[in-house]
Amino acid sequence: MREELGGLVSAIDHVGIAVADLDEAVDFHRRTFGLVPTHQEVNEDQGVREAMLAAPGEGPGATRVQLLAPAREDSTIAKFLDRNGPGLQQLAFRVTDVEAACERLRERGTRLLFETPRRGTADSRVNFVHPKDAGGVLVELVQPAE
Amino acid sequence: MREELGGLVSAIDHVGIAVADLDEAVDFHRRTFGLVPTHQEVNEDQGVREAMLAAPGEGPGATRVQLLAPAREDSTIAKFLDRNGPGLQQLAFRVTDVEAACERLRERGTRLLFETPRRGTADSRVNFVHPKDAGGVLVELVQPAE
Ligand SMILES: [Co+2]
Ligand SMILES: [Co+2]
Repeated sequence: MREELGGLVSAIDHVGIAVADLDEAVDFHRRTFGLVPTHQEVNEDQGVREAMLAAPGEGPGATRVQLLAPAREDSTIAKFLDRNGPGLQQLAFRVTDVEAACERLRERGTRLLFETPRRGTADSRVNFVHPKDAGGVLVELVQPAE
Repeated sequence: MREELGGLVSAIDHVGIAVADLDEAVDFHRRTFGLVPTHQEVNEDQGVREAMLAAPGEGPGATRVQLLAPAREDSTIAKFLDRNGPGLQQLAFRVTDVEAACERLRERGTRLLFETPRRGTADSRVNFVHPKDAGGVLVELVQPAE
């Protein structure tokens, strides 16, 4: 049994913030911190409207801020906002192979939220580590599209 | 009045996670995700034991995970753990000039936690935006040491 994801995690991909209103939050981060929106989409499967933002001048591989707003009331983000209000919600590690990463985590008894990876931002494939098995942090594993 | 920090924020510096036991958390992140410790220190001023971790192969400018454990019971991190348990605690933007950034934020009515910047990790200079003025997120502004 391999103990770690050595070689599988290649970067801190993004930090996710739950927000009530996506457009307002994008505008706030642009005006307040000068962050630059690089991507926006609706993920129907996860019930979320989302945007990626970068610090100005950062390259395509640099860590992003991900703003997440509910697209429907039964979504994870809607429930998070009800329980906690807006704020930091998730931390995403970029992996080279999300299936291999999930398999290695399961071998060591770490629980994942989905049986198999789902579609994430920009056709990436994602899964999530249960916060109880990751020090209270909702950890996303994201394998970018080819 | 300038509306944004345009030109002042240059990167997402780190994401801070509150943990009860620093050594245990460093070991967990190393074993579970393959993250590599790059720095460790005790900040007496802020009452915190902390470590920085990077994804393997990442350069010195890449976003870090910062693990924060209480060094004394009246510290911000101890209070955070009492209230919320372990988990995501802060998001730090790297700035080229922390005093100019704070001045520009104050001009637009944004509250900062300290009157003047304090010593942060590795002799950086830091201040924090009040979470109520930053969408529920404790935002740190960090100007690295020269
Ligand atoms: Co995400
Ligand atoms: Co920090």
